[in-house]
Amino acid sequence: MWLYLAVLVGLYYLLRWYREKQVVSHLQDKFVFITGCDSGFGNLLARQLHLRGLRVLAACLTEQGAEQLRNQTSDRLETVILDVTKTESIAEATEWVKERVGDRGLWGLVNNAGTFHPHGYTEWLKIEAYMNTLKVNLIGLIEVTLSMLPLVRRAQGRIVNVSSILGRIAFFGGVYSSTKYGVEAFSDILRRELQHFGVKISIVEPGYFRTGMTDMQKSSEAVKQVWKEVPVHIKESYGQKFFDTCELFF
Amino acid sequence: MWLYLAVLVGLYYLLRWYREKQVVSHLQDKFVFITGCDSGFGNLLARQLHLRGLRVLAACLTEQGAEQLRNQTSDRLETVILDVTKTESIAEATEWVKERVGDRGLWGLVNNAGTFHPHGYTEWLKIEAYMNTLKVNLIGLIEVTLSMLPLVRRAQGRIVNVSSILGRIAFFGGVYSSTKYGVEAFSDILRRELQHFGVKISIVEPGYFRTGMTDMQKSSEAVKQVWKEVPVHIKESYGQKFFDTCELFF
Repeated sequence: MWLYLAVLVGLYYLLRWYREKQVVSHLQDKFVFITGCDSGFGNLLARQLHLRGLRVLAACLTEQGAEQLRNQTSDRLETVILDVTKTESIAEATEWVKERVGDRGLWGLVNNAGTFHPHGYTEWLKIEAYMNTLKVNLIGLIEVTLSMLPLVRRAQGRIVNVSSILGRIAFFGGVYSSTKYGVEAFSDILRRELQHFGVKISIVEPGYFRTGMTDMQKSSEAVKQVWKEVPVHIKESYGQKFFDTCELFF
Repeated sequence: MWLYLAVLVGLYYLLRWYREKQVVSHLQDKFVFITGCDSGFGNLLARQLHLRGLRVLAACLTEQGAEQLRNQTSDRLETVILDVTKTESIAEATEWVKERVGDRGLWGLVNNAGTFHPHGYTEWLKIEAYMNTLKVNLIGLIEVTLSMLPLVRRAQGRIVNVSSILGRIAFFGGVYSSTKYGVEAFSDILRRELQHFGVKISIVEPGYFRTGMTDMQKSSEAVKQVWKEVPVHIKESYGQKFFDTCELFF
């Protein structure tokens, strides 16, 4: 009896050891394209994959962010300027990637670029303030994916979409949460459609990490500004006291 | 023992009877604004609420739809032309509603307007083809809600957002499903935020009902047209045989 148990436990560890030994090989031939590498997760991921030996194609929104990243890395990491809200910018970046990966295709696409409209109650902001978040987080992600997909398919690669805990539970964050819910649905459908081609789709749902997006001071200032600008009828409905109380939570 | 049981069952039915007796009163003073009343659920709801005696403010996309609806009803139902993808159109409709409801506010807002891009695999369509669905189903719904909210709050009213079963499970329907996921997140957050004001938010998640949206012949023709127009590289990746097989399901 104890012998059998020992053998089972032994087999379990053997299996685990075997599975953990399975690592991706030939990293130096594999290209990963990451959006939003100016700061936060995108920046960290670009540097880490570069250290591991992958060929990193890092898309930044600003030339400043791109330059900083290049200065910290070697020529295994290349940068391109990409604004995911602009169709031409996406088309240009796709051409740029195509030139680099050639027949090998794109082994990894990480849709990381994201933004957050100012915090506060949904009603305090106008639709225009939400539009940029919608364009970056949902529409931009869809457009970049559709544009890069032929390259990913050629490599039988994988797509990683950065969603959020707010993409699973809508407890806070108004329209931001809607965009992340949208990303989850899009990813899930694409995952099933592309199985056929050996392309994998994953999502990542970060919680509250200390990136630029969760900078308390910045968001507290932003919400104060929002409150300052709300129309009088909204200010009267909610009341100054209400704002003072919830300000503590932003 | 049997006596206690009988009393319990009796109490249960008494309670049920009491709860079911609670109906909304003064229907003739209550205004409901419904978007997308040209056809389908919106059209049916407008006519049914009109029959029940409510004051129906029915928004249609086309004058033709509006005229048909007026011909079938009395002056308790009024129509307005609304394109939820246009900010000015929303602002005009809001003014029109405000004039009608006055100090009573808007007792009900039903965000029903919705559209579906052609069926088929996500990759077969370009982002432009998805944009209208995003603008109507998600961005339009958010904008109409934000615009009407002060009127709804005045009446301590309710908002009903028409989502879809595809807003809960993403098994099909590409970007359409993303828009409906977005609606669910938006509604859930708003629901919590507006509890404070006595405003209620509900969602409806219809399955496969026979409306214009689920017209098999139309969608089969649309997907054939989509396939005809996909770029050669996509046609080669999926293959004609693949299309012929899945065409049976659209």
